Amino acid sequence: TPAPAPEKKERKSKKDKDDKKFTLKTPKGTTDFTPADMALRDSIFATITRVFQKHGGVTIDTPVFELKEILSGKYGEDSKLIYDLQDQGGELCSLRYDLTVPFARFLAMNGKQYPAMKRYQIAKVYRRDQPAMTKGRRREFYQCDFDIAGQYDDMVPDAEILAILVEVLTELDVGRFLIKLNHRALLDGVFEVCGVPTDLFRPISSAVDKMDKMPWAEVKAEMLQKGLDAAIADRIGTYVQRKGSKELVAQLREDADLIKSERAKAGLNDVELLFTYLDVLGVTDKISFDLSLARGLDYYTGLIYEAILLDELTTAQILAAKADKEKALAASGKAKKASAAATSDDADNDESVGIGSIAAGGRYDELVGMFAGTTKKGVANKIPCVGVSVGVERVFSVLQKKRGAAPVKANATQVYVMAVGDGLLPERMAVAKQLWEAGIPAEFMYKAKPKLQAQFNVCDKEQIPLAVILGPDELAQGLVKIKDMRAKVEGEASAGVAVKRDEMVAEITKRLAVL
Amino acid sequence: TPAPAPEKKERKSKKDKDDKKFTLKTPKGTTDFTPADMALRDSIFATITRVFQKHGGVTIDTPVFELKEILSGKYGEDSKLIYDLQDQGGELCSLRYDLTVPFARFLAMNGKQYPAMKRYQIAKVYRRDQPAMTKGRRREFYQCDFDIAGQYDDMVPDAEILAILVEVLTELDVGRFLIKLNHRALLDGVFEVCGVPTDLFRPISSAVDKMDKMPWAEVKAEMLQKGLDAAIADRIGTYVQRKGSKELVAQLREDADLIKSERAKAGLNDVELLFTYLDVLGVTDKISFDLSLARGLDYYTGLIYEAILLDELTTAQILAAKADKEKALAASGKAKKASAAATSDDADNDESVGIGSIAAGGRYDELVGMFAGTTKKGVANKIPCVGVSVGVERVFSVLQKKRGAAPVKANATQVYVMAVGDGLLPERMAVAKQLWEAGIPAEFMYKAKPKLQAQFNVCDKEQIPLAVILGPDELAQGLVKIKDMRAKVEGEASAGVAVKRDEMVAEITKRLAVL
Repeated sequence: TPAPAPEKKERKSKKDKDDKKFTLKTPKGTTDFTPADMALRDSIFATITRVFQKHGGVTIDTPVFELKEILSGKYGEDSKLIYDLQDQGGELCSLRYDLTVPFARFLAMNGKQYPAMKRYQIAKVYRRDQPAMTKGRRREFYQCDFDIAGQYDDMVPDAEILAILVEVLTELDVGRFLIKLNHRALLDGVFEVCGVPTDLFRPISSAVDKMDKMPWAEVKAEMLQKGLDAAIADRIGTYVQRKGSKELVAQLREDADLIKSERAKAGLNDVELLFTYLDVLGVTDKISFDLSLARGLDYYTGLIYEAILLDELTTAQILAAKADKEKALAASGKAKKASAAATSDDADNDESVGIGSIAAGGRYDELVGMFAGTTKKGVANKIPCVGVSVGVERVFSVLQKKRGAAPVKANATQVYVMAVGDGLLPERMAVAKQLWEAGIPAEFMYKAKPKLQAQFNVCDKEQIPLAVILGPDELAQGLVKIKDMRAKVEGEASAGVAVKRDEMVAEITKRLAVL
Repeated sequence: TPAPAPEKKERKSKKDKDDKKFTLKTPKGTTDFTPADMALRDSIFATITRVFQKHGGVTIDTPVFELKEILSGKYGEDSKLIYDLQDQGGELCSLRYDLTVPFARFLAMNGKQYPAMKRYQIAKVYRRDQPAMTKGRRREFYQCDFDIAGQYDDMVPDAEILAILVEVLTELDVGRFLIKLNHRALLDGVFEVCGVPTDLFRPISSAVDKMDKMPWAEVKAEMLQKGLDAAIADRIGTYVQRKGSKELVAQLREDADLIKSERAKAGLNDVELLFTYLDVLGVTDKISFDLSLARGLDYYTGLIYEAILLDELTTAQILAAKADKEKALAASGKAKKASAAATSDDADNDESVGIGSIAAGGRYDELVGMFAGTTKKGVANKIPCVGVSVGVERVFSVLQKKRGAAPVKANATQVYVMAVGDGLLPERMAVAKQLWEAGIPAEFMYKAKPKLQAQFNVCDKEQIPLAVILGPDELAQGLVKIKDMRAKVEGEASAGVAVKRDEMVAEITKRLAVL
C-alpha cells in the first residue's frame, strides 16, 4: 500500500524550541473536547441512542485495535489510510477504520449465539486522512452505527434502516437533508450492458462515485484514462446522470437493453420493493434514487446510500465559487498572486471542502462469511447485514454553528455552599456532605477563608442556581440561609431566606423541582 | 526501554490453518463486550457519572493517542508498557497509558481558560502488560478519573476526592473496601532519616511498594540487592510495616528522629490536617494510613492512595494458598508434575493473580508545569492537581460474578407488533411506525409471512412485555389486540384485549406506565 505524502514539519517558533523540548499539541487531525463541547456531544449521543433503542437496538463494544489481517482487503483504495501499531514484539495490530468490519468479525466469532442482531455502536474510528478540522473531518472521529444482521425477507430491514436514518437526522435537527440511494447490482448491470470489461468495473465505479465532486466531463476523462472507450463512457453517462424516485424505477424497467442484464433486473426488483416499504414508513420524500452513487468500500453487495445536508454548501458549489473568484481576480490582473496563494494552501487548513455526506451505509451480505469461513459440510457461514453509519463530528460542527456563542452550563451543580464571616470551612463541608447524601449536586470553595464576592462569582460563572449561606449567628440558632442566585434581587430579599438546618434539604428539593 | 519478552506464537489447529489465512480473535489482552455485558457496564458508568457530577465534575475528551514525547518520562519503570503507533510518515504517537497525563497536557494548553477545574473522564487506556482476563486485567481497559485542578488550601480538594471515592465504591456495591493512604514527602522523609542515599529513593520506594505482594523478608532482600545496607533496610522496616489511623499520625509526631526531617514533618502535617476533614466528611473509618504504600508512578508529589476490596482474595493470599498446595503435592510425591505444570502456565491464563487495587490516585503538583513551562517572567505555569482513577474492569468482574447467570434484558423494546394469518407486513410496519412516532420502542419480524409461534418466541427471548396483534378481522373493524406477554395467561384472556386503532397508543402508554 502506497504511503500518503509525508507531512510538513511542525513550524516551531524559536521561543518554543528554547523553552521546551516538545510541541504542546494534540496529534495532527485530533482534538480535545472542552466541557461545553462535551455537553453538546452528549446530547447528540443521547438523541441518537434513543432512536436506535426505539428500534430494538442493543449495543456491543469491540477493541479500538484489531489484528491487522482482519482489516486487510476490506476498504479498497482507502486501505492506505489505516493506522498500524508499531511491532513491539507481539501481534500486528491496526486501529479500527470503521465499526462495520469489527462488527462482522464479532458476528463471525459469535454467530451461534447471535445469528441475528440489531446492534448499535457509538465509538471512535481512525483514518490517516488529510484533516479539515472546522468541517469536522478528523483523523480520530466518532461513528454512530446501526446494523441489522440476520437472514430476513428482502428489503424489510433495509427499509427500517432508512427510516431510522430519517428519524435520527430529523431529531438531531441538522436542517434539510436528502438520502441518495443506489444498488450495487444495478450499477454493475449498467456497466455490463454498456460494455465495460469486467476488470474495469471497480475502477469505473470509483470514477462514477466522484460525480458529486466534479462535472461529468471530468469523470468521463478519468474513465478514458482508465482505459475505457469513449463510446462506452458516453453510454454510461446516459445512465449515471439520472436521478429521481419511483418513476425512475419504472422508466428503467422499460429500458429493454438494461433489463437484459440479470444483475440490473435483480437490483431494480430490490429498489422497487424497497419503495413500497418506504411509502408505508412515510420516508419516500427524503430519498433520491441516484444512479451516480457508487461508494468506495469493497464490502457492499446490494443497496447503498448516503445522506447529505442540503443547507450546507457542497464541495462542488464551493469549488465553483472559488473558480469564479479566481477568474475575476485574473481579469483584474491579480492572477499571479491569487494562484500563488492557492498553491501554498496547506490541505490541513483547506476549509474549501464542503461538509458533504453526513451518514452512509449499505448492505454487505458476504463480509461475515469472509471471516467465518464454511461449516464442516462446506456451507458458507454467511450472516447477511445491512447498516448505516452517522458521522457525528459533522453533525457536531453543524449544531455548534447553530448554537453560537450562548454560554453552556456544563456542570450539574445545583447548590453552592458559602460562608459569610470567618470561613467556616468544616461547617461548609458538613452541609455539602448533607446535600450529597440527599443526591443534590453541591460544591463549596476549597479555601479556609474565602471572600464572599469570590463565592458569588463562582455561582455566576458556573450558573449555579441556589446558594446555602452559612453565618456564625444563624449557625448558633440552627439556621442556614437559602438564596436564589438567578434572581438579581436587591435589598432585603437579596440575603435569602433562613430555614432550620434539618429542613434545608426539603426546602432545596422543593425549589429545585420548580426550577 | 527494554522490550517485554516476545509472546508465544498463537497455537493454531491444523483445521484452522487450512480453512482461513487468519486467526479469528481479538488482539491479546482485549475483548468484546456483548449486549448483556454492555447493560452492566452502562449501569456502572451511570452510577460513577452521577457521583462525579454530584461533586461538580465536568467532562472533557482527549485523543486516544498523544505525541510520543508527551508520555515520555512520566511512568517510571512502566514506560516499557506504552503502545507506540507505527511511523507511517508523520508525527510519532503513542496510545494513552492513563488519563492523567493527557489531562495535564490539556491544562497546560488551556490553563488560561481553565486555571481551575473539576474534571471527570471515563475512557479507555492501553498497557502492554501481561493480561489476566477473568480478573479484569487487560491491555485495553477503561479508567474512570476524577481530578481537581487549581490553587487551593491544603488538603481540602484531597479530602473531597477521598469522599468521592468512598461514595463511588459504596454506590457500586462492590463489597467491603479499604483505602490505603500515604504521603510521598513522608515516605521520602523516612528514607532520609533511615540514611538511604538520595539516588536510591525511587528504587527503594519501588521495593516498598511490593509489600502487599510479598513478605517483608523478600522486600528487604530486594533492597539489599539494590545496594542498600542491611541496617538501613531494617530501619526502613520499622516504619513501613506500620499502619493505622489518626493515632499513627500522633505516634509518628512523637518520633524525634523522624520529625527532624522537614519533608517528613510536612507530610505528617498534611496527613493530620487531612484526617480532620475526613472526620467531617465521615469517611475516616474507610481509610488505612499505611506507610508501605509507595505507588510506582513518577508524577506524584504528595498524598497517594489506593483502594482495595476486602472480600476478594489478594495476590498474597492466593500465592500462599498455591504454595501450600504445591507443598502438599510434593509431600505426596507428585512434585515433579506439579512443578512442570506451574512452569508451562501461560501468563495469559494465569488466574492466580488477585484482583488487588480497584482504584488509586494521588496529588501531582508538578505535572502541568512540566508541560506548560514558564511565563515570560520565568514563573512556572504550575496548576496543582489531585485525582483518583477507578479501575472499572475490575468492578465489572466483581459485579458480573455477583449477578450470576440471571438473564439480562439488553434491549429497550416494549412492544412487539405481530400478525395472525396472512402476514400483514405493511400493516405491521405501519403500526410500528405509529408507535415509534409516539416514542415507544417497538419491533416486528422482518418476514412477509412469519409464523405466530416464531413471533411469540421473540417476545420470550427478548423479554418484550407487550404485543400488538393484528388480524384480518380486527383490522377490518379498525381494531388491534393488545396482549401482556409477561402474564402466562391461558384461555380467553390469552388472546389479549381489542382496542380501537386510534386508542392503541394511549392504551399502551397507560400499560407501560405501570409496568
